[in-house]
Formats: sequence, C-alpha cells, structure tokens
Amino acid sequence: MTLRTPYLMFIGDAPDQLAAKTADGVAFWRPEACLGQLRLPGCNADLRLPDMTIEEASAAGVKTVIVGTTNRGGVLGEGWEPLLVKALELGMDLASGLHHRLADIPVLRDTASRCGRQIADVRHPTREFHVGSGVKRPGKRLLTVGTDCSIGKMFTALAIEKEMRGRGIKADFRATGQTGILIAGDGVSIDAVVSDFVSGAVEWLCPANDPDHWDVIEGQGSLFHASYAGVTLGLIHGAQPDALVMCHEPTRAHMRGLPGYKLPDLKLCIERNVEAAQLTNPAVRCVGLSINTSGLDAGAARDYLRQTEDRLGLPCIDPVRSGVGAIVDKLAV
Amino acid sequence: MTLRTPYLMFIGDAPDQLAAKTADGVAFWRPEACLGQLRLPGCNADLRLPDMTIEEASAAGVKTVIVGTTNRGGVLGEGWEPLLVKALELGMDLASGLHHRLADIPVLRDTASRCGRQIADVRHPTREFHVGSGVKRPGKRLLTVGTDCSIGKMFTALAIEKEMRGRGIKADFRATGQTGILIAGDGVSIDAVVSDFVSGAVEWLCPANDPDHWDVIEGQGSLFHASYAGVTLGLIHGAQPDALVMCHEPTRAHMRGLPGYKLPDLKLCIERNVEAAQLTNPAVRCVGLSINTSGLDAGAARDYLRQTEDRLGLPCIDPVRSGVGAIVDKLAV
Repeated sequence: MTLRTPYLMFIGDAPDQLAAKTADGVAFWRPEACLGQLRLPGCNADLRLPDMTIEEASAAGVKTVIVGTTNRGGVLGEGWEPLLVKALELGMDLASGLHHRLADIPVLRDTASRCGRQIADVRHPTREFHVGSGVKRPGKRLLTVGTDCSIGKMFTALAIEKEMRGRGIKADFRATGQTGILIAGDGVSIDAVVSDFVSGAVEWLCPANDPDHWDVIEGQGSLFHASYAGVTLGLIHGAQPDALVMCHEPTRAHMRGLPGYKLPDLKLCIERNVEAAQLTNPAVRCVGLSINTSGLDAGAARDYLRQTEDRLGLPCIDPVRSGVGAIVDKLAV
Repeated sequence: MTLRTPYLMFIGDAPDQLAAKTADGVAFWRPEACLGQLRLPGCNADLRLPDMTIEEASAAGVKTVIVGTTNRGGVLGEGWEPLLVKALELGMDLASGLHHRLADIPVLRDTASRCGRQIADVRHPTREFHVGSGVKRPGKRLLTVGTDCSIGKMFTALAIEKEMRGRGIKADFRATGQTGILIAGDGVSIDAVVSDFVSGAVEWLCPANDPDHWDVIEGQGSLFHASYAGVTLGLIHGAQPDALVMCHEPTRAHMRGLPGYKLPDLKLCIERNVEAAQLTNPAVRCVGLSINTSGLDAGAARDYLRQTEDRLGLPCIDPVRSGVGAIVDKLAV
C-alpha cells in the first residue's frame, strides 16, 4: 500500500478542529501534497486549504481523497457515500483512518473494483507478517517512546526526520499509526496487528539499510499504559533502536483513558524503556526528551525544560517551541 | 465456545510423540474426557487410549473429535477430510489446534452447517474484545511466567489448579493457548488476538470473582523473548496477578527459536516480571519457581532445586518430580 499524491482532505461535518486531527496532521506535515479540503455543512474544522468539490479536486489533479475525520456515529456520515463514489468514478483513490473499513461498504468496494481504483483503510494491515527474528540488521534506528499515549511521539519523529534531512543525514520516518501512515504514504498500523506478529511487523517496517541511514520510527502507547504496554514492548523489540527519545506532557493529570493511573516518573520511565530495548540492542541509549509544553506559558515552559535537562542530564526540548536540533546534535556524538 | 465432552483424540499420522503433544496434553490432564484415539497408518505416537474408528467413537458417546496433531504439510493430511466429514455427519463436533482453520475448508464448513454441528478452531478467537481497562477486580489471580517459551507454564498452572482443588480451595485454570483451551474446554488463544486488545481479552478471561477464588492463568512467551515479549506483557497487565510463578528449564542453551539469545538470569527475570506486574497490581509477589528438570538426573535435579531455593529464597519445585504443594503452601501465608 503506497498512497498516490496529491490529496484532497475530506473532513465532512467535523464538529471541531480536534475531530479533524488526522487531516490536520497530514496538512501540517505534507502541505505540498494537500491541494484542498472538502467540508460539509456543519463542519467547524478548517485546515486552511482551498475548499474544493470532488469535481474541482479531480480537475486540479488530486489522486487520493483522504477521509481525515471521525464521523458522529455509524460508519460514514450522511451524504458522504455519494461523494466518495463520485471520487472513485472520477479516477481518484480513497484512503481512510476510520476504524470501520471503507472497503467493507459494498457500494464503495464495488465502485472501486469497477473503476480499478484503490481503497486504503490504513488502520488495517493488508499483508501477513512473520514472527520477529531478533536478528540485528544494518542501519541506525531511532524510536520515540512516551510516558503516555497521544503525547507527541509522531510529531517528534517527523520533526527529527525533517531536521536530519535538513542536515543532509539520510533519514526516513516510519509510520506505525493511521495519521503517520497518511503522512508518510506507507506504514503499518501496529496496534491492529495480531499480537504474535508485532515485533516481526516492525522488523519488516524498518528493514536493513545503509550503515549511516536513520529510520525514525513513530512510537505507540507507553510501557506504563495498562491497556497498550504490550504493543509498545513489541514495537521496541522489533525496532532494535539505537536511540530512544522520551516524549512527555507535564500537565497531564492521569494516563489517557485510565483515571486511576498516574503518569510514571520520567527517570524511571527512561530506565525501563532502555532496559526493555537492551534485549534486542544492548547499545541503545536515550538521547533526549521531547516535551509538549503547550499547557504551559512561555516562562514556565522554559523553566521546565531547563530543570528537566539539569535533572536528567539529557537534551530536553519542545519540538514546536525550540525544535529538535539539540537531540539530533546528540546523535552525531 | 465451550467444547462438549467426551473426546476422541485424532492424531493422524503423527511421525513421533512430539507431533502429537497437543493431544498428549489433553489426554494427560483430562483422562476422564478422552474415550479413545484415532491413528492412521504411519502414526508413531500413542496416547495409550483405546484405538477407535469414527463410527466406534460415535457409538461410545464421543461428542467432540479433537484434531490433536500437526500434519506434515498442507492444511489436512491425506485421507483426513472424509473422516472428519463422517464425524460431523454422525453428530460429533470438531475442535482443532491447527494454525489453519478447519472452518475454512468448504466441505467441513458446509457439512457442519448442514448437520448443525460446531467447529472450534481454538487458535482463532471468535469474539471481539475491549481495550483493557486496568480497573482492579475482586478475586485472586496467579499467573505462570517464564524465562522462555515452551518451558512448563501450562503444566504448572494445571498442576496448581489441581493441588488447590485437592485442598478445597476454589480455583479455575484459565487457558491462553490452544492446548490449554482443549484441556479446559474454553479460553482465549492470546497470541492470536489483535495487539490492541490483548490485556482486555485477559481481563475478560479472568473476570471478577469471589474474594477467596483463585484464577490460575496460563502464561505465554517471556518478557525476555524478542519475538513474543509484547504478548507476555499484555497478558501480565490484563491478569493483574497477585502471585507469579516463574517457570524455567535449566539445561536450555538459548531462547527458543533465537540462537543468538541466551536465557535471562533467574533473579533478574523475576525482578522484571514483578516490576511489570506492579503496574496493574502493586501487591504482586513471586511465590515460587517451577523448574522442568527432565534434562537432569535425579541427584542433579535435587541439587539444582535446593541451590536455587537457597539462592532466591523462594520455594523451588519440579511439578512432575516434587509436585507444586510447596508453592500452594506459600499462597496461604
């Protein structure tokens, strides 16, 4: 599965910007690939892209319509289906990050088949994977890990890929979640893989490469998240990371979706992630922390970053406020 | 899915006893449920059960034919299909621990449907699970963990269930793999669950119970196995164990299937498992070690158990040679 660009971002009747966060992520990281947005009545999200109809998108050269929002109930919102059928008939592919497969909707499946078009339900792996081999492979790998879910692991990995490429370092972002896959145009939604094959799927995702090439792998979940830690551990072992970047959000009151669970201590969390990663790469080290300080004012953010850096002895950055340069510096050492 | 007893054990043309190990396990732990075995020409395994034809099994009151061997290639061995069709036609169900689903074989699926019979492909979960909630639930739970795969976790759990029941303690074995499911008649093949739902599936498998009831949960994999550690961690978190029993085989040269990986130090392995389990049950403790000493002579086995017990300060037994009484004693403390 490789998505054809450029894209039209379909955000339906997203009630707010958060409901369109998948589309938002794609528009932020792939502005050159996003020609326009399609919004329906009631949509309160705005990607700041030109509004287009399906017909205008086709005329503009769009190759794939991305369903980049969740709907308010059911598989598709009202009136979405005819628009998506039209897109297929005009020669465009569909890609979706929804839980429910577009390809399970008979009219979409049949139309795609009739028109020779592709439907990419990126949450659902389309191939089989082997069990992880644990065999070391050439190339360097960086994995973002976190104290919790939804804490900046994808954003940080993309920012590091961009910084590396800007410095002429060979680097590829490797996507493990639906938004990341829509951004990269490829990847594996790792939490949808049968548990036996998680580390094998990650080995497939970031295969042997040049000795000076970096795979920058999007982390998932957290070793301290009671629902998803197994996914995280399989991802760590399959990635065989040389470098870990710990992501954190300092104002979060409890683990996402688990009111009874506090966030782990940062130092302990780093230790446990390094210990886990040592199984498949004894040389692994944590090279820095990426902090989402959006909940703090500028002064508090600066203080937090400086104090955490002093306490842990590692570069501590906010990828939005300060960029990830200090972490990439550390990789050259 | 609950399997109807009694069983006929179908072991086809198993070339040796190891190829029939699933059937062997069921015959060992459920002798009262196993009325007979069906062997084909070339079979070198023997469950020491009366040999029966499909017709004799039906006449004897068998309710389920268990496919308890792997075949030498392909989905089913030569000549198996007509026998299994006959079993369905005579009113018996089928259950299988094979990777490939019997229910995917058209003639078996159609015959079962026509005759109103059940095909249980126990490696494949038949229901959907929720994401793990991490919410503590009443009842006590013991989980067997291990330094490696295939090291005695199922056997130890079954032995502990038997010992507990013999002492009048309320206890239920909870199966997480295909042989365990065929023995218990129910369970979840946890390594076949989509990774996002592993801990939730385990929460479902050992739900809230009486405060003095023990679920004795079959472990899978190992936190130190590069292929499967994620499965193990999700299982640990979903189980919320009060007690862990560490299983080990002292003569194994390397991790199963991973020639480059040594077995972990026992003390470190216990520490890491306890640390992992503390996330969802801070009161967890390791209550003993279950050692498979079949590779040692009687004297060496005795020495190993005594030395390990002295070194780690925990009961250290071989479930076959010495029974699990010393571990169950520890649970009462």
